[in-house]
Amino acid sequence: MDEPNIRYLFEPRSIAVIGASQDPSKIGFMIVSNILSGGYQGKVYPVNPKGSEILGLRSYKKITEIKDSIDVGCIVVPAPHVFDAVRECAQEKVKFCIIISSGFSEIGNREEENKIARFAREHHMRILGPNIFGVFSASSSLNATFGPSNIRPGNIAIITQSGALGIAMIGKTTVENIGLSAIISVGNKSDINETDLLEYLLQHDATKVIMIYIEGLKEGDRFIQALRKTTKEKPVVVVKAGRSQRGAMAAASHTGALAGSDEIFDYLMRQAHVLRAESLQEALEWCKFLARTPLPEKEDAVIVTNGGGIGVLATDACEKYGVKLYDDTQTLKETFSEFMPYFGSAKNPIDLTGQATSELYSAAFGASLRSPRIYGMISLYCETALFDIDNFSPIIEETNKQFQAARKPTVFCLVGGTKTEDCVSRLKSHDVPVFTDPYEAVSSLGAMYTYHRYLSQQSEKVDEAPIDVSRVNGVIKRVKEDGRRFLLAHEGREVMEAAEIPMPRSFVAQNLDEAVIGCEKMGYPVVMKVVSKDILHKSDVGGVALDLVNKKEVIEAYEAIMYNCRTRQPNAKIEGVELSEMVTPGAELIVGARVDRSFGPIVMVGLGGIYVEVMKDVSFRGLPLNREEVINMIKEIKSYPILLGVRGEKKKDIDTLVETIIKVGTILTQCREISDIEINPLVVYEKGVKGLDVRILVSAS
Amino acid sequence: MDEPNIRYLFEPRSIAVIGASQDPSKIGFMIVSNILSGGYQGKVYPVNPKGSEILGLRSYKKITEIKDSIDVGCIVVPAPHVFDAVRECAQEKVKFCIIISSGFSEIGNREEENKIARFAREHHMRILGPNIFGVFSASSSLNATFGPSNIRPGNIAIITQSGALGIAMIGKTTVENIGLSAIISVGNKSDINETDLLEYLLQHDATKVIMIYIEGLKEGDRFIQALRKTTKEKPVVVVKAGRSQRGAMAAASHTGALAGSDEIFDYLMRQAHVLRAESLQEALEWCKFLARTPLPEKEDAVIVTNGGGIGVLATDACEKYGVKLYDDTQTLKETFSEFMPYFGSAKNPIDLTGQATSELYSAAFGASLRSPRIYGMISLYCETALFDIDNFSPIIEETNKQFQAARKPTVFCLVGGTKTEDCVSRLKSHDVPVFTDPYEAVSSLGAMYTYHRYLSQQSEKVDEAPIDVSRVNGVIKRVKEDGRRFLLAHEGREVMEAAEIPMPRSFVAQNLDEAVIGCEKMGYPVVMKVVSKDILHKSDVGGVALDLVNKKEVIEAYEAIMYNCRTRQPNAKIEGVELSEMVTPGAELIVGARVDRSFGPIVMVGLGGIYVEVMKDVSFRGLPLNREEVINMIKEIKSYPILLGVRGEKKKDIDTLVETIIKVGTILTQCREISDIEINPLVVYEKGVKGLDVRILVSAS
Repeated sequence: MDEPNIRYLFEPRSIAVIGASQDPSKIGFMIVSNILSGGYQGKVYPVNPKGSEILGLRSYKKITEIKDSIDVGCIVVPAPHVFDAVRECAQEKVKFCIIISSGFSEIGNREEENKIARFAREHHMRILGPNIFGVFSASSSLNATFGPSNIRPGNIAIITQSGALGIAMIGKTTVENIGLSAIISVGNKSDINETDLLEYLLQHDATKVIMIYIEGLKEGDRFIQALRKTTKEKPVVVVKAGRSQRGAMAAASHTGALAGSDEIFDYLMRQAHVLRAESLQEALEWCKFLARTPLPEKEDAVIVTNGGGIGVLATDACEKYGVKLYDDTQTLKETFSEFMPYFGSAKNPIDLTGQATSELYSAAFGASLRSPRIYGMISLYCETALFDIDNFSPIIEETNKQFQAARKPTVFCLVGGTKTEDCVSRLKSHDVPVFTDPYEAVSSLGAMYTYHRYLSQQSEKVDEAPIDVSRVNGVIKRVKEDGRRFLLAHEGREVMEAAEIPMPRSFVAQNLDEAVIGCEKMGYPVVMKVVSKDILHKSDVGGVALDLVNKKEVIEAYEAIMYNCRTRQPNAKIEGVELSEMVTPGAELIVGARVDRSFGPIVMVGLGGIYVEVMKDVSFRGLPLNREEVINMIKEIKSYPILLGVRGEKKKDIDTLVETIIKVGTILTQCREISDIEINPLVVYEKGVKGLDVRILVSAS
Repeated sequence: MDEPNIRYLFEPRSIAVIGASQDPSKIGFMIVSNILSGGYQGKVYPVNPKGSEILGLRSYKKITEIKDSIDVGCIVVPAPHVFDAVRECAQEKVKFCIIISSGFSEIGNREEENKIARFAREHHMRILGPNIFGVFSASSSLNATFGPSNIRPGNIAIITQSGALGIAMIGKTTVENIGLSAIISVGNKSDINETDLLEYLLQHDATKVIMIYIEGLKEGDRFIQALRKTTKEKPVVVVKAGRSQRGAMAAASHTGALAGSDEIFDYLMRQAHVLRAESLQEALEWCKFLARTPLPEKEDAVIVTNGGGIGVLATDACEKYGVKLYDDTQTLKETFSEFMPYFGSAKNPIDLTGQATSELYSAAFGASLRSPRIYGMISLYCETALFDIDNFSPIIEETNKQFQAARKPTVFCLVGGTKTEDCVSRLKSHDVPVFTDPYEAVSSLGAMYTYHRYLSQQSEKVDEAPIDVSRVNGVIKRVKEDGRRFLLAHEGREVMEAAEIPMPRSFVAQNLDEAVIGCEKMGYPVVMKVVSKDILHKSDVGGVALDLVNKKEVIEAYEAIMYNCRTRQPNAKIEGVELSEMVTPGAELIVGARVDRSFGPIVMVGLGGIYVEVMKDVSFRGLPLNREEVINMIKEIKSYPILLGVRGEKKKDIDTLVETIIKVGTILTQCREISDIEINPLVVYEKGVKGLDVRILVSAS
């Protein structure tokens, strides 16, 4: 038997409320009341051991009494009775259980929660919750929540891990004139999580934008795959609480999930083309703007202003939020100078000066709209004494419509006193993207441009490298048989060989003949070191020789080392000499890959050597990934210029670095028993790379 | 004759409006009208060539007709007539001219502006403007602006470089219930700038907080000294436009001033204990909170919430804005567990759960108020279905009063629908610090704690080091006689010797023979560098050879350097090569000092060597400064752990590094003709430091 289609959770034909109540102060009452007043067209069955009637509906003593088939069972009984209710739902072949009740893993009662989830899974029934406020779905006019009854339908879907914030957000959406296509609380995520819900929302036409409030991840890699798929179709805005270390602790204490490293989360969201907002307010603003405004064709925007100062603030904000300003001075002049007042500026920002009237704004708006080179506009207004703000308001509304029709996204920012604020309120209630601070205005436009940029980067391609998997698995098998988790030096070297990642060659020679023959084979220059358990500080006794460039120098060095060691430490037992390829300096990076507990397999690149821990100049991506993403990842590290060559140095072999990162990622993907690989430093030369040291760990289980 | 006391600008006994008008659409009318309706008690004299009457006042044809003595002349005539008006004001011994008129340096007409400023200076008269909207001063009920007429008096003073933003901000303060003690537009700053105004505001008791909107600085070092003095008495909040490169360009184009590097500005503001806000909105919120809330005794705060999610968001915000959360679990338990509901948490955030009533909040507020260990509170509320929000509003108001009386700063954040928003509006109109997003709430509290921390760091102390100034000046004299701006290697070395900053031994050889003989005397290994006035970046042209261990290698290197320089920079005049002791490795830093065009003398420390330009891991301070500031400056760089010793390395000699920075600062302060010093790298060892290379420039003038 298959799992039920997630659609029935959002568009059930029938719903039973188990724990329905006649008492208006009870959640069991509010849910029935909200379902009825919300206009749900399916069948509603209150269930309560007392039976009788609730809000005019016949109430059933047990769900098993209901003759109809039930798509969703909404459970609001106290925690100790939830399992029984779930069992009865299973008997009735209910498809989804929405468990509102709390008292499970969020207070440490993980056992009962797991038991319920396991039972449901065995009976092909799915669980939302527990510890949630319910589900609102505009498509079926279903408000199965104990939140506000007046949810405005619209095209933004919200998934929230926090119930309290979810209810408060519903209220906020009403105040801010935002319509919702759905809002779902996932709570403890005992079964259904964000990923499952994305499946529905991705194909749900009425949903234009998805907002997710998240504290911690379960099945991070599945979530990220689902996000990648979704963002191809519609923008996703994420707010993650627990950014800070202390915040993450607080998040972990109040939900069951372990909040992963916030920095990695940030990289993975970007890779999945998700817009990450800092605050709820910012997220809601972005959603509103993205839901109402068509995507632009291109990015060049102009700032139109009546004040220089606010124009500069908006310019700063454009840099912060990644809004590209159009800057062909000649075109700007041709477009705007016709009506530009004396003292004005036709550079971008277009400064209409404090003398600007609404007619002048109108002219500038029209010029921007008609220009084939301008694709977006930020319009700023500072209150002035004689300005005709009452005329301005309809102009703004009309301009917004025209720009939307032309697919040129536009934001407005009006700063001033009571009259200005009244104008802002009026425009807001007419769904115009209007703000009172330039940073806020530009932030929304920036989110749109960022998403627009993401769309052009979408790619299905996955790049992997040929790896001798069976050789690697052979090594891993030996390590595991040996009861170890970490690989020894020669084992790590063998894995590197299987992936064709070069390391400095070396060998041990027991006598001069072996040394000479080996060097001739390996090539020069070489380093020679005495091998002896009794000699700890080799260079102190003259046991090391650097930079030997030919056979003659190898012979001389061998004799010198033997002489030095025998005279300075006569009792030492000498086993021979180790000869290694001499490593020349280059750019020292670190390349790694690991299976992260929260996020799944990830790769990392950064500045290597001793600077790894100090500068923390690293960049992450999730696996699988393609060559282009690897290149972006390398470009993100601050020390990228070192690879391009600084101070007269030649450019480094970035192609081979990219290949090496792909190889390391492929090892992790194909050899599932490896949990961690780290090459540090990986020296990148003008041609080729060399890994000087590698650490590899095998999964614990 | 002395310059007039700045107080007369804010509290004039008489004011003449030159260019007063009967036409209500003219600025010359609005100013007279605002002065009269604002309730100004001094004498007002309209001046207009037509004479007759304006708003019931006798109008004079010329200022010279007025028999009274005039403190302030407010000039609103068109730019070409301004100079004449100023001249007449001088005749009448007017103390201050407020030049409202535009058409000067902001559109390139610098000459006329300079002429007016020069003339005024010669006549001991001071100029505010031109290109401003005027002055409002609550102390004299003077509204000499063409902005709104209804400015609410209060205790926040605003200085703004942008007129349009200034007027808009007045409007905003009215909407947001903010009272102003003064608002002054500085415009082109032909004479009076922010520094002059700070002098008045510092001693002005009615002013509790000062906000400055700034685009570019003139006399940056004087401004910073004035800020340092002011922040000892009252908080200063700065918004600087032109953060971004493009923003700085826009700022420079629309005012006369050159916006300096934003990064340096940021460091100097911190050093002057100024709070820097990102946006106008944030700045106004901070000012409002700082003006109304007494400073705390200590910093530990608690978060009280009815929702876990919003608690985590606030915790994240606390980290971002530097709010310290109290975390003694035992004390928290004792303080809150008495009334904590089942499922609640007495850890910080204190989670009262979704069941919280206003009584429960009240109990938690009381407990926080009484606790001798808690010094501040962030109270969060997420709308819930059954919450008694009407009871909550008076509780919040009373709690705010009690916490203020106890000097425990408190912010409230309420998230929800219409009922919640109504409550927020009501509380706002009663001056309660209430917000609708946790980040905004915490931001204001963070500003207060930051200022509180600053106050404890205040110090008058200046540290300098003994420098042989006459020896340095001797070097500078020779350089200037030679017509150069930069010092040659041996001259730089002499300056370093005068400050006792050690450099590796070295000598200059004019030919190969001298090089070989000198090296044999000095010992190996050595570094060889080309000496040429024409070659600034020696390694870029192959003018450097490292680690030369014997005579043979010195000869080879000499030939290679000569060949490289001659082929890559054929026109360079080569004077020889410098040979220096090869230095052992240590932590490579950069230490520098320069006289910045915008900010005056500054010092810098950062990660040195090739990483300077790549990692840009540097920190700045203004001069003069003391040892503690130098230590803070060093701690700010990301690579600070390198000095503490990473990967088993020993701790570096931070004391000597501090001394070296003080020495470099002292050179700049005492030898006024030096404009730039840069030691890079300065190698810091376990004991002592060594400067490997120093670049010194002499001022251009």
